[in-house]
Amino acid sequence: MKESMEVGILGATGMVGSEYVRMLANHPWFKIKYVVGKKTAGKKFRESNEWISSYEPPKSVAEMTVLESKPEDQKADMFFSCLPTDAARELEPLYARYYPTYSDASAYRMEQDIPLIIPEINPDSWELIKKQKSRGWAGFLTTGPNCTSIGLNLTLKPLDDEFKIKKLVVATMQAVSGAGFPGVPSISILDNVIPYIKDEEEKVAVETNKLLGRYANGKVEFANIDVAAMCNRVPTIDGHMETVYLETEKKITPEDAKAALRSFKGLPQELKLPTAPEFPVIVREEPDRPQTRLDRFAGTVPGMSAVVGRVRKGIDDHSIRYSLMSHNTVRGAAGNTILTAEMFYKEGWMFDKR
Amino acid sequence: MKESMEVGILGATGMVGSEYVRMLANHPWFKIKYVVGKKTAGKKFRESNEWISSYEPPKSVAEMTVLESKPEDQKADMFFSCLPTDAARELEPLYARYYPTYSDASAYRMEQDIPLIIPEINPDSWELIKKQKSRGWAGFLTTGPNCTSIGLNLTLKPLDDEFKIKKLVVATMQAVSGAGFPGVPSISILDNVIPYIKDEEEKVAVETNKLLGRYANGKVEFANIDVAAMCNRVPTIDGHMETVYLETEKKITPEDAKAALRSFKGLPQELKLPTAPEFPVIVREEPDRPQTRLDRFAGTVPGMSAVVGRVRKGIDDHSIRYSLMSHNTVRGAAGNTILTAEMFYKEGWMFDKR
Amino acid sequence: MKESMEVGILGATGMVGSEYVRMLANHPWFKIKYVVGKKTAGKKFRESNEWISSYEPPKSVAEMTVLESKPEDQKADMFFSCLPTDAARELEPLYARYYPTYSDASAYRMEQDIPLIIPEINPDSWELIKKQKSRGWAGFLTTGPNCTSIGLNLTLKPLDDEFKIKKLVVATMQAVSGAGFPGVPSISILDNVIPYIKDEEEKVAVETNKLLGRYANGKVEFANIDVAAMCNRVPTIDGHMETVYLETEKKITPEDAKAALRSFKGLPQELKLPTAPEFPVIVREEPDRPQTRLDRFAGTVPGMSAVVGRVRKGIDDHSIRYSLMSHNTVRGAAGNTILTAEMFYKEGWMFDKR
Amino acid sequence: MKESMEVGILGATGMVGSEYVRMLANHPWFKIKYVVGKKTAGKKFRESNEWISSYEPPKSVAEMTVLESKPEDQKADMFFSCLPTDAARELEPLYARYYPTYSDASAYRMEQDIPLIIPEINPDSWELIKKQKSRGWAGFLTTGPNCTSIGLNLTLKPLDDEFKIKKLVVATMQAVSGAGFPGVPSISILDNVIPYIKDEEEKVAVETNKLLGRYANGKVEFANIDVAAMCNRVPTIDGHMETVYLETEKKITPEDAKAALRSFKGLPQELKLPTAPEFPVIVREEPDRPQTRLDRFAGTVPGMSAVVGRVRKGIDDHSIRYSLMSHNTVRGAAGNTILTAEMFYKEGWMFDKR
Repeated sequence: MKESMEVGILGATGMVGSEYVRMLANHPWFKIKYVVGKKTAGKKFRESNEWISSYEPPKSVAEMTVLESKPEDQKADMFFSCLPTDAARELEPLYARYYPTYSDASAYRMEQDIPLIIPEINPDSWELIKKQKSRGWAGFLTTGPNCTSIGLNLTLKPLDDEFKIKKLVVATMQAVSGAGFPGVPSISILDNVIPYIKDEEEKVAVETNKLLGRYANGKVEFANIDVAAMCNRVPTIDGHMETVYLETEKKITPEDAKAALRSFKGLPQELKLPTAPEFPVIVREEPDRPQTRLDRFAGTVPGMSAVVGRVRKGIDDHSIRYSLMSHNTVRGAAGNTILTAEMFYKEGWMFDKR
Repeated sequence: MKESMEVGILGATGMVGSEYVRMLANHPWFKIKYVVGKKTAGKKFRESNEWISSYEPPKSVAEMTVLESKPEDQKADMFFSCLPTDAARELEPLYARYYPTYSDASAYRMEQDIPLIIPEINPDSWELIKKQKSRGWAGFLTTGPNCTSIGLNLTLKPLDDEFKIKKLVVATMQAVSGAGFPGVPSISILDNVIPYIKDEEEKVAVETNKLLGRYANGKVEFANIDVAAMCNRVPTIDGHMETVYLETEKKITPEDAKAALRSFKGLPQELKLPTAPEFPVIVREEPDRPQTRLDRFAGTVPGMSAVVGRVRKGIDDHSIRYSLMSHNTVRGAAGNTILTAEMFYKEGWMFDKR
Repeated sequence: MKESMEVGILGATGMVGSEYVRMLANHPWFKIKYVVGKKTAGKKFRESNEWISSYEPPKSVAEMTVLESKPEDQKADMFFSCLPTDAARELEPLYARYYPTYSDASAYRMEQDIPLIIPEINPDSWELIKKQKSRGWAGFLTTGPNCTSIGLNLTLKPLDDEFKIKKLVVATMQAVSGAGFPGVPSISILDNVIPYIKDEEEKVAVETNKLLGRYANGKVEFANIDVAAMCNRVPTIDGHMETVYLETEKKITPEDAKAALRSFKGLPQELKLPTAPEFPVIVREEPDRPQTRLDRFAGTVPGMSAVVGRVRKGIDDHSIRYSLMSHNTVRGAAGNTILTAEMFYKEGWMFDKR
Repeated sequence: MKESMEVGILGATGMVGSEYVRMLANHPWFKIKYVVGKKTAGKKFRESNEWISSYEPPKSVAEMTVLESKPEDQKADMFFSCLPTDAARELEPLYARYYPTYSDASAYRMEQDIPLIIPEINPDSWELIKKQKSRGWAGFLTTGPNCTSIGLNLTLKPLDDEFKIKKLVVATMQAVSGAGFPGVPSISILDNVIPYIKDEEEKVAVETNKLLGRYANGKVEFANIDVAAMCNRVPTIDGHMETVYLETEKKITPEDAKAALRSFKGLPQELKLPTAPEFPVIVREEPDRPQTRLDRFAGTVPGMSAVVGRVRKGIDDHSIRYSLMSHNTVRGAAGNTILTAEMFYKEGWMFDKR
């Protein structure tokens, strides 16, 4: 196993791309070699995203020139992709042909031979990449879920394991950074709520059932949870708040639910991966937490934990309600994908075992 | 029937009080005689609320002196109350002893002999006031629901009538004006969502069942709907957005639901009351409406209609989802109470028929 | 003089275009015949601007089809233009060739033979249009100033007349609607101030000197005021706040300044034009007014008055400070241009006297 | 010199108090011994400020009980005070009687024998504390300026040294955290600018002249700069933006001004104090920086540098304009006072040399 991996970032100068650069700046294993972007190609990285980010990019990356995509020429150990959907559809296979490619774009999430991974939830589905050889790829492609699905499913997984979820009604209050840059015009969101985010509700429903499904015999058997999602854009900068109502097969109490959430750990915690938070889910007891601004960066690795609060009875003893906050560009995008790559690297799935 | 009624406003200099003054300024039947307020007593009305309201109070009210409450001395034909809960608990019975009193405070909403009225929904429950004679009151007290319940129930009523609602999961995104003045500190809500409003979820649940219950034999038989409410404060100024998921006994389709909502009218529309909107519920077809800022003042009487959009399938053919917007200080408070008083006046319930 | 004028609006589906439609919907003299727009050409007007405006367009306009510009074919009595600068540069002369054209675009404001008009300030400069015949135009072109300059100069004019202004230091806090649609990305302005608006400070400086200059002998002699403008974008929706420090040749006291501002009236007030506010400048005495949200729609014609407050000493008895608020899309754009057209129409400058 | 100092914080549970706790949590020299607060006395610290702060207080402080003030009983090496003005007026002398007391309250800033210190600007004025012995104090009291004055004067000092400032016109756009907690109601500031902050403009004017004055012969000779300040509250959370116009005795160019700002260093930098930023003033060249959200935490010690941008000509070659951003609760309050205490400690002014 190489001690250090050279990585390229596809879509490096957008909202999530900045987050990759920030999180990889001092990464112990991964080192940025290429920053790839279409609209900003030819510029220095530091000139390409100054409106978006409140941090100064690391010197080493700041002076890099943003490149147009050329899969065959850009030799690296692996690539991260946060491309827009259409660009992802076109370019990700071209990179996967040569390199391990980790994406948080939505283009290929639902393909039968492409893993959709949250490392704490369904690491075993990595095995799908073995089937990708039949695509003629020397590399592979694995994906992470939608920003809204990730925080949500971190909280659903331990509850489903213990109480078996039958029905989920979730309403979201999503930050504007989720729409990328330029994204939502300010005139459209100041003093406003927009009760609509294109395709989001469908993604939450189907991704939840893929994530909480079961990997067996070379494919994912989807779960069978009824999901009614209602997604809203609100005037916050970062962090998606979600209110959850769910019904379970087994009896559930708020105390039991909190215990399950608190004890939840996964492979990243076991492996002590660099980007793994000590607790994937943090449970708070105050009546008015989590809050977007106060909790989006909670946890030992800022922004990598979902924060749950107000765990309370639903309508009977087979249902509960709670609120959750998770950072949409960290755990909801770049962070989840980096954690996935760390897991692949540490477990040897990237090269040897494949 | 007198041609014009002199009215007093209890709590006149708060957030909702301002709304009463605005809506009554040119009212054809009601004329403001007293403005009553504790903290601002002794000041001119115009000096008492300048931070709150973007309109200039009518000259006639601007120069009135805010009075301390003195029920026995303040002779008027009727009173409106938007007092804080504790003050309402103490003072509303003292006024009801002498005068017809219309309140949107929460203190007495759940009393067995006190009506909780949305005029389009349950006008017949006015008859409860007859029972109040046993309290020794020459006047009476009637109440309106919580700001969140009102818009919601305007949309639930026609759906319940036609499809029989069994279960309701509602998430709200409520404006800061709902917390009164000074209310929510700005440092607490800028770039933030607070997933908690004290006692709000309980009110939504119980008030819905009282409103959609049945008046018979001198009492209200509560409805039997399972309600799971999840209430959030968001950084908007006015207008409560709500996302609704509901399950019905009979089959329901989005098209049938929209038809029911659109055809809904009540006694206020029949009586052509001054503050009655032509349509209590407006249904929009755009994918991204209603929106808080764009729709809170919709309708023929601005702010008196609930605006519904995104009516779509729930999880099966016995459930639907939709979004709704209603103005929390107009239909959600002052407007609903004024409409109630207009109905009482026009129908002769205030004096003759009682 | 015709009793009613048919008008076209160039750039009708943008932010300011919507304001034209709103203000002309029930205009006593002007009737909308064409709505012209490039990006939305071919759509119904009602489909073209739904994200921008909180009002429903009047039925008559809602069903109009947005047209591409065709100056020779679009016969109307006059045109309003709120085109983007480059489009204005190309198209306004093509319309002025045939029709009276009133613009609030910046392209031609500084041309020697093009008036730059605030009707209360420099109506006499209308005579410049006589010189436009040498351009071979059967119509003419007249312009209004930048949204920031208009409110500011309404307050400067009476002070300059009485005290002679020598130096002006103005800092602005401008709303996002001033940047049009989509304009400023929400991620760029939530919880933020941007201390830069392209070309704005230069416009304020030069337009002020043209507006406060003197028309004589067929040209405008510029005023000679030193202007230091510092323009900022803040997270408000509508209404530009400005803080003004100015030095005068003659002695000035806050009381004298307020008297001059309050007594200021111009030709529109004299002619009682439909869009003329009773007072072009409203002076408030509270320590904390004007405020953006509370005062942007002040006055007898909402949004057409500048509101001044905090008039206080500068550093000596030849300087003062004050704050002012004016609505950037009403008086700062559509409203000022409509008022100009009303003045031309009423005074016969549009046809007879020219 | 003791290796570690035990400190108490007066007003520890307010907005600025939280900042003290955060900045002192891992301080190499100062260790929190007491947290003192009136409204929250008797509670655990962690229960006292949960709505305000997005960080979790350090464990050691979280479990401390908030105390009522008892100067004689609370033995510590020194105290920090961020009390409200009236409480400061009463309590600071009682603590100064026994202990070195460092305050950022305004109560005693203008007393003749009380230093008003920004460590990079006027460290020599520390000698005023020698005169405080005549008050019968065994300890002493020193103060820091208003949050708006501090960032401003960091930029004025090098310009005054080199070009001699004669006149200053400054407009501010101040964040809501500057008003403390609960501070500005959200209903008052969403979608709004308030052009008034009580007493703020007067403080900026007089403090600037004390800070840029000259310490000699046991007193401060005030500078003689004409100051016209115009202070506004805007809907941002942290960070005060200011636009500055100034006139100088000597010729000034933007390039010379930037050079002076960039080369500015003071005693804290020389002493390499723990809280001293490498550069007190950071100058940026982009046209649209500094911005509130992007730059408030700039520099090697986050929030301790003022960030300047848009340095450009004023109206002639004796004037310039620029924008500046500084963090109001860090450098503008707790950070400046801690830096002052570090300087006193390191230089031996706290005990030995006094």
